[in-house]
Amino acid sequence: MANVKIVPLGGLGEVGKNMMCIEYGRNILVIDAGMMFPESDMPGVDYILPDWGYLRDKKDRIRAMLVTHGHQDHIGALPHFLEEFDVPVYATRLTRGLIEVRLEKSRQLDKVTLNTFAPGDVVNIGPFVVEPYHVCHSIPDTVGLGITTPAGLIVHTGDFKFDHTPVDGWPTDYAKLAEFSVRGVQVLLSDSTNADQPGNTPSEMVLNDAFHQIMREAPGRVIVATFSSLISRVQQVVDVAVSHGRKVAIAGKSMIENTEMARELGYLDIADDQLIELDRIGELPPREVLIMATGSQGEPMAVLSRLATGRHATLTIEPGDTVVLSSHTIPGNEEMTHAVINRLFRRGADVVYSPIANVHVSGHASQEEQKLLINLLNPRFFVPIHGELRHLKQHGKLARQAGIPEENIAVVENGCPLIFEGNRLVVGERIAGDHVYVDGALVGETGPRVIQERDDLSQSGFVVAVVRYDRKKGQAVGKPRILTHGFVFEPDSEDLLARAQDVARAAASVPPNTGEEKVEKEVEAALSRFFYRETKRRPVVTAAVVKS
Amino acid sequence: MANVKIVPLGGLGEVGKNMMCIEYGRNILVIDAGMMFPESDMPGVDYILPDWGYLRDKKDRIRAMLVTHGHQDHIGALPHFLEEFDVPVYATRLTRGLIEVRLEKSRQLDKVTLNTFAPGDVVNIGPFVVEPYHVCHSIPDTVGLGITTPAGLIVHTGDFKFDHTPVDGWPTDYAKLAEFSVRGVQVLLSDSTNADQPGNTPSEMVLNDAFHQIMREAPGRVIVATFSSLISRVQQVVDVAVSHGRKVAIAGKSMIENTEMARELGYLDIADDQLIELDRIGELPPREVLIMATGSQGEPMAVLSRLATGRHATLTIEPGDTVVLSSHTIPGNEEMTHAVINRLFRRGADVVYSPIANVHVSGHASQEEQKLLINLLNPRFFVPIHGELRHLKQHGKLARQAGIPEENIAVVENGCPLIFEGNRLVVGERIAGDHVYVDGALVGETGPRVIQERDDLSQSGFVVAVVRYDRKKGQAVGKPRILTHGFVFEPDSEDLLARAQDVARAAASVPPNTGEEKVEKEVEAALSRFFYRETKRRPVVTAAVVKS
Repeated sequence: MANVKIVPLGGLGEVGKNMMCIEYGRNILVIDAGMMFPESDMPGVDYILPDWGYLRDKKDRIRAMLVTHGHQDHIGALPHFLEEFDVPVYATRLTRGLIEVRLEKSRQLDKVTLNTFAPGDVVNIGPFVVEPYHVCHSIPDTVGLGITTPAGLIVHTGDFKFDHTPVDGWPTDYAKLAEFSVRGVQVLLSDSTNADQPGNTPSEMVLNDAFHQIMREAPGRVIVATFSSLISRVQQVVDVAVSHGRKVAIAGKSMIENTEMARELGYLDIADDQLIELDRIGELPPREVLIMATGSQGEPMAVLSRLATGRHATLTIEPGDTVVLSSHTIPGNEEMTHAVINRLFRRGADVVYSPIANVHVSGHASQEEQKLLINLLNPRFFVPIHGELRHLKQHGKLARQAGIPEENIAVVENGCPLIFEGNRLVVGERIAGDHVYVDGALVGETGPRVIQERDDLSQSGFVVAVVRYDRKKGQAVGKPRILTHGFVFEPDSEDLLARAQDVARAAASVPPNTGEEKVEKEVEAALSRFFYRETKRRPVVTAAVVKS
Repeated sequence: MANVKIVPLGGLGEVGKNMMCIEYGRNILVIDAGMMFPESDMPGVDYILPDWGYLRDKKDRIRAMLVTHGHQDHIGALPHFLEEFDVPVYATRLTRGLIEVRLEKSRQLDKVTLNTFAPGDVVNIGPFVVEPYHVCHSIPDTVGLGITTPAGLIVHTGDFKFDHTPVDGWPTDYAKLAEFSVRGVQVLLSDSTNADQPGNTPSEMVLNDAFHQIMREAPGRVIVATFSSLISRVQQVVDVAVSHGRKVAIAGKSMIENTEMARELGYLDIADDQLIELDRIGELPPREVLIMATGSQGEPMAVLSRLATGRHATLTIEPGDTVVLSSHTIPGNEEMTHAVINRLFRRGADVVYSPIANVHVSGHASQEEQKLLINLLNPRFFVPIHGELRHLKQHGKLARQAGIPEENIAVVENGCPLIFEGNRLVVGERIAGDHVYVDGALVGETGPRVIQERDDLSQSGFVVAVVRYDRKKGQAVGKPRILTHGFVFEPDSEDLLARAQDVARAAASVPPNTGEEKVEKEVEAALSRFFYRETKRRPVVTAAVVKS
């Protein structure tokens, strides 16, 4: 019996979100290579790669990298991946454009093979037939994948929603889904992001009313912040603004890059005379200005945060400005985003955000759409992907409600291969693997131990005691030095630190010929006890005992 | 003209949430003394006190501390406050009970004067007449305050909602509000927490359906986590569980303390034979067990988090268990809470939380209720309180919609006194003040500088170079020692750290008789450059140059 392996890779994040493999014999298709952003308990980490260690000894088997769409969590790890693996990439036109922008930055563009595929194409890759089909999502040119394998047809939704009135007029391809259904779908891998949201995700179109009201009523400039990859949102906001006689300025590096590229490729329709350079908006009355900007997550280096703290080179918030955050706040970013909103208010702007106004909708299917897809495709096996365990469990419940038998639903986490044998889907043995942290120039070297140390330091800082030590006498020489950082405010703590010198000195009073390492342990233990007693804090305490 | 000052105290948090003063001549009323919890950019801080420095030179003027209800953000700072100020406290019975629990812990109970007041009382305090009136909130026995001053009647809502079907059958006191209105309300200070939520906050009663469904369908034990102060939620869950034949066990220190106290005072009605000790639940069939637990915010030391990680002394999650999080996740706690939910699923529990089921409603009024209150009281001046600036601005907009003239609405932040002269309300000069951090035993000593140092440490850790130095020669003696923590994983970084020794040694090669401090600066600069070049990280680098 044909034996196809489906492997979601990555650490304990959203399952299969950043990378999945489909494997048959000595042939592997890889789907997406995205990055994750660090959570607040991963200090100092810049971003996270999925762990593709599983593929390292199978380099010659990888036939293709298939990319579903151009968001960072699906393409952000490509530069790192393509450095290790020389495989042809397949993507739609806009997605390819976004990949090219990234690869140009990392100077890899002339080293990799990029292929364009389009919805409706039928691409033969080794023993697989790959059929990308159009889906609605919060970026144009997103596809799901029909993958015919020797064990049957697998459908991978990518990120999707059913939007009957999408901004670009191009709904999810129902006909193709019906065709798959007629052919018989063996395994459905479906986006679980919104599995805890009842009902249907609203159409992008519902935002028009809110934007019309804002553009009409705003007494001055309107500044709309959103993700720079949300090309269709940019189109929508620009169309409404232009209809109210406003010209458009673009602010923020990624917003400029992405809108330029999308205009070149024809995915964003803004006439030249509707645009104005950011440094020339002063020539227009404020009521005739729209600024599209980055920073809707409160990111400290993006435009919105700079405006909120008065650190932008050319723009300053003025009373009469209206700022719109057209985005969902990613969990973990709430405090930063709220701080930016409060600061913008403090500078005199009016700030509009969800739920105050209807200025954002999700790009992912909610429960009713997820059930619709299951009924449309009528798959034999169901595998919820793209979500944390809580989303997958919920999506599994929905699939049961929609008639998939319990035993045909596989909820697995990253690293758990599913072995699909046509009439059976079994969970294989877990593959070792975890997050791969990118920390400055260090890829994969910063591990849980270092992260734990950073967390300890962030709680109470550190104290280093430098003790000159006469081993023959078993005594400190002179006063030990106490260095601290992040523990107490030194000018107010002279007395505490002076007493700590005495404590360190006393602890270094040991039998003659005691070794330095033992003295270091004594000093560390004595200082830890002393500081806890005096302050109820536990700084990281290190002693350096130096031969005198 | 009588001149009354209204002063919200605290740092940049929710305005007037934790403490407010009302001042007339040499008479001050203080309302509430709550604590704040630190945001994620305040590492190591345990909790935060409002800055009451303004009151320090006015000790003899404070006539009373009036407490609106028993939540931590309204009573949590009382032990610290009462240590400094010897003033009589006024609170309702349940609130007083919760205050006593706290004061007993800090051994202050016999040192302070506690008075019980009740809704409907008229209390003369100096030149003020204080009239507490009943409001609905997520804890019983909550009051708002009518305060008649020489300049007119001020109404302070405390935290409130309008619930027409509250669990305890006691709605907000509309008659009293109408009476205030007839007398003429000069200033309304109103809760803005939910000013960005359209419509009405649902009644507590709507949760009954969800809880009945859970208790009926759960195949085994049900574990409901909520705030231990949410006494009416506990009552509601227990009533539903008992009606389905379940007995109740209480888990978690604060849940045990608060339910005991509330039962004693008659605010929580659970018969003895409906309770069972936690360590005896094994004697019952799982379908006959309800456990009320702490930890709905994912707090690492509370019951739910211990269950999720298998660290609870007596309880273990088993397949068949149903866990309910009956609470709103406080912004900043999402990642922790989601991690707990995922872990509970991984251990085989079913987990129910909002928005999957209707298991929590807010305790604060939404927009329609806020407007209703304004129309009921018809105040001359309106001051939104209890919210971040974004909430206050939104509440101000609602007040304008409800007919309060723009010039009679005062949106101010903490530390901005409002001077109320009967027919005028003007904003006075800002009082110095900020957050007061409680960090172990250190109250107010940990400031922004130390917090910034901790943040730097959490990004890339530290490196300390200890260099023995011969001043006469201007040279290092032997190999410098390099200590690191939270920077790189040392076993993998031997080469990097060995080269760092060479860098430090070379930097300490200086003209003879160069001073130690100068050498330290040289070594620090050289190492910082070296590490950034090699790793693109910037650890905190400190050099200790020791005389040889």
